[in-house]
Amino acid sequence: MKEDPGSVMHAFIARLFPICRSITGGGVRKTLRLVQDRIPIQVHEVPTGTQVFDWSVPKEWNIRDAWVKDSSGKRLIDFGEHNLHVVSYSSPVHQRMRLTELKEHLHTLPERPEWIPYRTTYYEESWGFCLCENQLAKFDHDQEYDVCIDSSLEDGYLTYGECLLPGEEAAEVLVSCHVCHPSLANDNLSGIAVAVELARYLAKSSHRYSYRFVFIPGTIGSITWLAQNAEVIPKIHHGIVLTCLGDAGSMSYKRSRQGQAEIDRAFIHVLRHSGDPHTVLDFVPYGYDERQYCSPGINLPVGCLMRSRHNEFVEYHTSADNLEFVQPWALADSLANCLAAIDVLEYNRVYVNQKPRGEPQLGKRGLCKGLGPSADRRERELALLWVLNLSDGRHSLLDIAERANLPFALVRDASIALSKTELLIPG
Amino acid sequence: MKEDPGSVMHAFIARLFPICRSITGGGVRKTLRLVQDRIPIQVHEVPTGTQVFDWSVPKEWNIRDAWVKDSSGKRLIDFGEHNLHVVSYSSPVHQRMRLTELKEHLHTLPERPEWIPYRTTYYEESWGFCLCENQLAKFDHDQEYDVCIDSSLEDGYLTYGECLLPGEEAAEVLVSCHVCHPSLANDNLSGIAVAVELARYLAKSSHRYSYRFVFIPGTIGSITWLAQNAEVIPKIHHGIVLTCLGDAGSMSYKRSRQGQAEIDRAFIHVLRHSGDPHTVLDFVPYGYDERQYCSPGINLPVGCLMRSRHNEFVEYHTSADNLEFVQPWALADSLANCLAAIDVLEYNRVYVNQKPRGEPQLGKRGLCKGLGPSADRRERELALLWVLNLSDGRHSLLDIAERANLPFALVRDASIALSKTELLIPG
Amino acid sequence: MKEDPGSVMHAFIARLFPICRSITGGGVRKTLRLVQDRIPIQVHEVPTGTQVFDWSVPKEWNIRDAWVKDSSGKRLIDFGEHNLHVVSYSSPVHQRMRLTELKEHLHTLPERPEWIPYRTTYYEESWGFCLCENQLAKFDHDQEYDVCIDSSLEDGYLTYGECLLPGEEAAEVLVSCHVCHPSLANDNLSGIAVAVELARYLAKSSHRYSYRFVFIPGTIGSITWLAQNAEVIPKIHHGIVLTCLGDAGSMSYKRSRQGQAEIDRAFIHVLRHSGDPHTVLDFVPYGYDERQYCSPGINLPVGCLMRSRHNEFVEYHTSADNLEFVQPWALADSLANCLAAIDVLEYNRVYVNQKPRGEPQLGKRGLCKGLGPSADRRERELALLWVLNLSDGRHSLLDIAERANLPFALVRDASIALSKTELLIPG
Repeated sequence: MKEDPGSVMHAFIARLFPICRSITGGGVRKTLRLVQDRIPIQVHEVPTGTQVFDWSVPKEWNIRDAWVKDSSGKRLIDFGEHNLHVVSYSSPVHQRMRLTELKEHLHTLPERPEWIPYRTTYYEESWGFCLCENQLAKFDHDQEYDVCIDSSLEDGYLTYGECLLPGEEAAEVLVSCHVCHPSLANDNLSGIAVAVELARYLAKSSHRYSYRFVFIPGTIGSITWLAQNAEVIPKIHHGIVLTCLGDAGSMSYKRSRQGQAEIDRAFIHVLRHSGDPHTVLDFVPYGYDERQYCSPGINLPVGCLMRSRHNEFVEYHTSADNLEFVQPWALADSLANCLAAIDVLEYNRVYVNQKPRGEPQLGKRGLCKGLGPSADRRERELALLWVLNLSDGRHSLLDIAERANLPFALVRDASIALSKTELLIPG
Repeated sequence: MKEDPGSVMHAFIARLFPICRSITGGGVRKTLRLVQDRIPIQVHEVPTGTQVFDWSVPKEWNIRDAWVKDSSGKRLIDFGEHNLHVVSYSSPVHQRMRLTELKEHLHTLPERPEWIPYRTTYYEESWGFCLCENQLAKFDHDQEYDVCIDSSLEDGYLTYGECLLPGEEAAEVLVSCHVCHPSLANDNLSGIAVAVELARYLAKSSHRYSYRFVFIPGTIGSITWLAQNAEVIPKIHHGIVLTCLGDAGSMSYKRSRQGQAEIDRAFIHVLRHSGDPHTVLDFVPYGYDERQYCSPGINLPVGCLMRSRHNEFVEYHTSADNLEFVQPWALADSLANCLAAIDVLEYNRVYVNQKPRGEPQLGKRGLCKGLGPSADRRERELALLWVLNLSDGRHSLLDIAERANLPFALVRDASIALSKTELLIPG
Repeated sequence: MKEDPGSVMHAFIARLFPICRSITGGGVRKTLRLVQDRIPIQVHEVPTGTQVFDWSVPKEWNIRDAWVKDSSGKRLIDFGEHNLHVVSYSSPVHQRMRLTELKEHLHTLPERPEWIPYRTTYYEESWGFCLCENQLAKFDHDQEYDVCIDSSLEDGYLTYGECLLPGEEAAEVLVSCHVCHPSLANDNLSGIAVAVELARYLAKSSHRYSYRFVFIPGTIGSITWLAQNAEVIPKIHHGIVLTCLGDAGSMSYKRSRQGQAEIDRAFIHVLRHSGDPHTVLDFVPYGYDERQYCSPGINLPVGCLMRSRHNEFVEYHTSADNLEFVQPWALADSLANCLAAIDVLEYNRVYVNQKPRGEPQLGKRGLCKGLGPSADRRERELALLWVLNLSDGRHSLLDIAERANLPFALVRDASIALSKTELLIPG
């Protein structure tokens, strides 16, 4: 029995969940090693200090342990219990201090007293702990605490993974996801899981485009990748950033900066014909790595696929973004939408009707036979007529599907049937 | 006393109704002869086997009689009673058979037990009878029936009629209607009647465009006409297919494939200012002969004018599409809309304001006088101002009417008044 | 204590109100002298008979006194009581006549029995009186009346005023208002008052554009100005006609003939972000002097700013358009909208992001600091990101504000902050 892809992806997320990732360090390496178990990725290491456009690769951060102990030696905050307890990129600290002083380094979510927030301090040396508001109640003003973050911030590397699946054409589709969030399931592990499953699917079949998957730390990772891959950029014809794809919300697609790129039209077509509620968002220079891919000097046609949008679900960047929050069916649905959009890209071509004067006689070529049960028959016949009518060398199959308001698959099937006769040739 | 055009058209439909038309044969010839009584058409005969684009002219079909008799010799189905009783293009048959065998050749409308359906078997040799579901009840399983279709399917001709009314310009307006349906009043006779009345009207007055009326069998007729008139095609500046113009439904206009052609804008403008409910439909490569005129290698600006749309009225392609179904007032209203759209085409020109800096002084030229009763006065003055303001050589009168949201006739009148002064000249 | 501009403008209107203006004559001169007290205008006198495009400058009209006296010598109508009592441009008359004859020269508003209408007889020699319907009741059919209009209609001049405030650039912004209406407060005095206050404001500060204010009689004045200033026309980059800016209605902006000119977009942006209800109107060749500026041979990008539109408030062209009808707060609000639109024009430029590949690091340049209280912080950061993302040499700041749906001021501030670093330079 074949496993359902939703469960496969959820199980993979469960394996990745305990790792403490950040924008650099051992957590990213461990994550990429698990990805490598499933798809053939190449791991790249970029040294600290490397200039990447306006930025420079930061020091590598690693953490072994961290705690706040009370005078009895009891750990009130224990990094071993949850990765989110330490502010990511905290500099090492080991000292005793009273609550007043410590409090400036403690972060809670008063409105969600049982959740731990997720905080970072990249590009600004500092340190801190995150904890539940409830936990904070156990602290005592009069006591002195033993505070320790056993981390290191040293010259090292920024690590990213890349998987290229060559297709018939050199033209590439870029699939990007970030790998820098610690134990957060929807905001980043769901993206990794869908990307990996997509790569596994594409590795098994032949395809027209070459597919490049990049597993990178957010912002600095995509900037580093772009800075180091100038020769790849012109090859990218379409791209998508995958994130927050496991929650129970409906699908959202955020347009690329170009706004009407083929990738935009493909995803929007697929969502519109999915029959499910969905949201299409205009490009905004805020969000995930599409910000970098869509910076004005790069301007790649890269959109972003999500279910619930960051900042619009309360679990975002908290310990509630956990393994229960992501659901196999939602992961499977996200994957299905990706595959459908890729199907559009793969089959979207311009054809030319070779009998463009008057309608060609479909009957004598058997094109009206085998149109299937009569309920679909009329739509299938209409798809044949639309493909013939608009295949004048100026309309792609996606143009035709949109103008005819038919699902792309019907138009694709019509083009395949017509291509088997002398009526239709690629333009 | 002048007869009202609605009654004239209905009476003409009544004369055409009894004729058994098909895509070829004597029925078409008889029909064209009646048309010839009213307007000067030329009749063309194209031999069987002539290659026309992807098609070839079929054998000519004629029918003398047809019946199904019971053992007593009584006609249970009698072609003499209704043309629709025989499937159009049925091959000849004369044999005895039991109901089980016969039934495969009988067509009814179970949901409308008193109506006879209309069926054809062009391009596939076969035969059949159509009858009321109620009539079928009178058949007896045990009996043997005498079945006869006294038809012929032989080399002959495809017949079509053409009427050219030359105008001041060689540029043509094409008016097309199909003449291949037997006793069906709305689906095709109404189109013929409106086309004939339009031609009679235009024949009586001078006009800018040349008007070409074609009376053709559907699909194969327009394909044949296009294939044999390659030199005419570039002369066609505007075109309209007329069909289903006699029922009580509101007007519908289906755009040409070009979508924003002048013919499209003219009809849509007229319908919008008619004050009546109406529907504007986008082009779809399905429907009447506009499918052929709008095939990608022809791509003429030809729309289609209807009242109720085929497939959207239950009487469509049944014996209920009869002389009661079409109404004089509806035919007259359809004709009026055609004449109004033709008025737009005739008068739609680009003019140039000869005093384009500042407004010219209308008062000293008497242009503000005689603007009529004060209720209209403001609109008429506005039309003068709009024509002057937009007549910069880049806006036609229709552009102006649309931007000003004024009926075309007002803008036309303003252009005529201004052209009588030195203020406005053709562009 | 600084006076509030609304009261200043209202007080100025009160000074102008008693003057009997028309399209020529002493009333215009007196008005311009009062304008000259506040801003440096140059007064131009154009002789009667001067040809201006299709028109010629009319005779100058002046009036000293006018009355209708009953047999006892009592003034039933007295020009001294209200300027509106005499039809503007009435030719001189002095005779005795019965009511029947006189009545043809009397104008009232039966539906508003306490208001005096405003009437003119430019370009058609005639005379008349306007009065309240109630006043008319006091006339007696049997009496003879002494009727006198002590006016003159002689060769003279058309007078207009002009104020040019040079800016850094020769490119000009035209601000136009009419000065030909007698004691009407909203329909024209409000426009004069706002224009004068705008000029006073601009005179106090440096600005990029040169600003040209014209105070002209309606229609013939703008035609005369255009005819005599052919060399100025190409310098006008943006323009606005100011009128009816003091009533309590919401703001209206009427687009220029070009429709999408920068002046149109600037005013519409300002009104949309004002938070107040407002109306945007398409261009119509009817209204105020924008008709002349937008004639096809001139076609300047000149819009028209109003509150209530002429013909859409009942007080229009009656004695009820008085000093109570215009309100200080409304004048101040109109002025504020003008200043905001001018701010858009002044700061609207195209910039180029100098680090266009990936996002530049804002933090290291201190650009994220001092973004103000956290409520605004996110919007201010977004404005920085939008300016960087769209400053590719093809988008102006107004383009960016519109696409980002942010108030222009936020985008302007972001461009100023970024211009202080090496990240942004003018394009």
